[in-house]
Amino acid sequence: MGTIQKELGITYPIFQAGMAGGITTPELVAAVSNFGAFGQIGAGYLTAEELRDAIREVKKRTNKPFGVNLFVPEPTQDVNKSDIEMMNEQLLQISPTIQPVTDPSGDKHNEEYVKQIEVVVEEGVTACSFTFGSPQLDVIHCLKIEGIKVIGTATTVEEGMMLEESGVHYIVAQGSEAGGHRGTFIATKGDALIGTIALVPQMADHLHIPVIAAGGIADKRGIEAAYILGAEGVQLGSVFLPCNESGANPTYKKTLIAKNESDTALTKAFSGKWARGIQNEFMEKMKEVSVLPYPLQNTLTKALRAKAAKDQNPEKMSLWAGQALRLVTDECSVAEVLTKLTT
Amino acid sequence: MGTIQKELGITYPIFQAGMAGGITTPELVAAVSNFGAFGQIGAGYLTAEELRDAIREVKKRTNKPFGVNLFVPEPTQDVNKSDIEMMNEQLLQISPTIQPVTDPSGDKHNEEYVKQIEVVVEEGVTACSFTFGSPQLDVIHCLKIEGIKVIGTATTVEEGMMLEESGVHYIVAQGSEAGGHRGTFIATKGDALIGTIALVPQMADHLHIPVIAAGGIADKRGIEAAYILGAEGVQLGSVFLPCNESGANPTYKKTLIAKNESDTALTKAFSGKWARGIQNEFMEKMKEVSVLPYPLQNTLTKALRAKAAKDQNPEKMSLWAGQALRLVTDECSVAEVLTKLTT
Repeated sequence: MGTIQKELGITYPIFQAGMAGGITTPELVAAVSNFGAFGQIGAGYLTAEELRDAIREVKKRTNKPFGVNLFVPEPTQDVNKSDIEMMNEQLLQISPTIQPVTDPSGDKHNEEYVKQIEVVVEEGVTACSFTFGSPQLDVIHCLKIEGIKVIGTATTVEEGMMLEESGVHYIVAQGSEAGGHRGTFIATKGDALIGTIALVPQMADHLHIPVIAAGGIADKRGIEAAYILGAEGVQLGSVFLPCNESGANPTYKKTLIAKNESDTALTKAFSGKWARGIQNEFMEKMKEVSVLPYPLQNTLTKALRAKAAKDQNPEKMSLWAGQALRLVTDECSVAEVLTKLTT
Repeated sequence: MGTIQKELGITYPIFQAGMAGGITTPELVAAVSNFGAFGQIGAGYLTAEELRDAIREVKKRTNKPFGVNLFVPEPTQDVNKSDIEMMNEQLLQISPTIQPVTDPSGDKHNEEYVKQIEVVVEEGVTACSFTFGSPQLDVIHCLKIEGIKVIGTATTVEEGMMLEESGVHYIVAQGSEAGGHRGTFIATKGDALIGTIALVPQMADHLHIPVIAAGGIADKRGIEAAYILGAEGVQLGSVFLPCNESGANPTYKKTLIAKNESDTALTKAFSGKWARGIQNEFMEKMKEVSVLPYPLQNTLTKALRAKAAKDQNPEKMSLWAGQALRLVTDECSVAEVLTKLTT
């Protein structure tokens, strides 16, 4: 039994990615953990109190270990009111009936983050994973004192080494294949879009803590390849999206199952940060538009995305997905997905 | 013993990528083949007669099987004289003493291609691999009649299926990690930059012929992972570049050894086609410039690249490299590299 299994008390070192935005229902997280893998609440966009509720709901459904995934906040960038107006006009051209957000100052992500950490400590979870940066040293310290394992996300070896230095227990090596947001937080000379097969061995060579491979893994072949490359665990997202227990909306599920490996692309259009999703009209139309910084862009596109979800219109939703899409083939239960991955 | 080894008469299904531009010296190709792997002459930019000489030089050094890699030509695109002048001005700003090519019509790649195929047939090699498209059916037919194995390059499952349909024997599945030119030839909705860990199993599931994994593989872990993912062979490029036998210039070798996984990026600046290389000043300066189509851009930048090579200036050379750069660590012999890869 590997370090990760022992330390987290799980049977399989398979992590369900902390997909934010209502995907990781208590049912999904609990089903993953009940199987013996590691479920995670994607709490990036949750308020502290929503996170508390989510943790309690998961606990009602499992007594197995599970985790929470948080976004490390960034210093808010000042944006001109006129830039906000321009973006709102742009969005109204694409979705004419939405109500634009004229004062996005209500989005207090930085303050909420401190409270999220408090909730994680108060409610007690087995591990807390982070993306978009290195958690502050006092945050790591505070989680460690409570016996909570801390997981960082790195897209380059340099980021991995910085996270290790800061004291995290494991590193998710996020390959370029991964769906959803890029965890990149240190600027590189090149493109920081390192494929998993290249990233994992280089990360494993330069780190002393366990590496969890993420990106493009969606079946047993990918999992076994990751172990050979030097990973001690794997993290999967897309395969869980069409599950009965997932909160992904039906149009999103249907689109995922229908699309192929070459249908995804990177975009900043939805949130202001690079993320991989199924290419659609919104991404296409926003290609030439200069997007506002995260999290402002995310706040401004919220209404458009909500409307698209309500209309079941995949052309204006954020359809985060990784590149192993042909391996994501049907709607079934989490237990069926995990059975295939482990036997 | 696998299909590839049996059919090609080799010990290891390890292909040395057909790196064009003087890299694949007869010494390099012969050393790879003499070890029991598969050497390939990167003949994309060679005239038919240069290719004939190269094949004969390799044969002097080995009686083992080896191959030739060719570029499938594309219909020439008409370009305004003024666009050529603008590009030349741009290049002169970056490299003021070069002699611009004002009449690029001397570059008769399409005519040369037919003669290259004739030379391949006349001289006889074990396999002929292609990139940038599907070789014409009569070309495939003509090679097959001579008992020459035909290898196609695909970056998506769709491209792989088209190549299989056209009758090639094996498919190189080129992941986004790969150094040098992208083989992409069918437009996709998304970005067609599929990482190897995602591309190989999806390709293997949908093809009936052997898949050769390429991109981000530079040690034994990568090779074994590729087999688990469903590949029957692997293709490596970057690891051979710093070899004593390689024709890469000393500055290129030194830069490769010094750089890391996040130092590469994709650029069209050198040739008009997307290719992955170590990020440098030229790539940076050309980012905002609208580049001319391949092969015209390649013809126009030739003088600039030659000058940079002569000056040993890595900031203006095309430093093609894949993403496993931390695994490329020293100058040594091909036999030493292959020993590490196979034991």
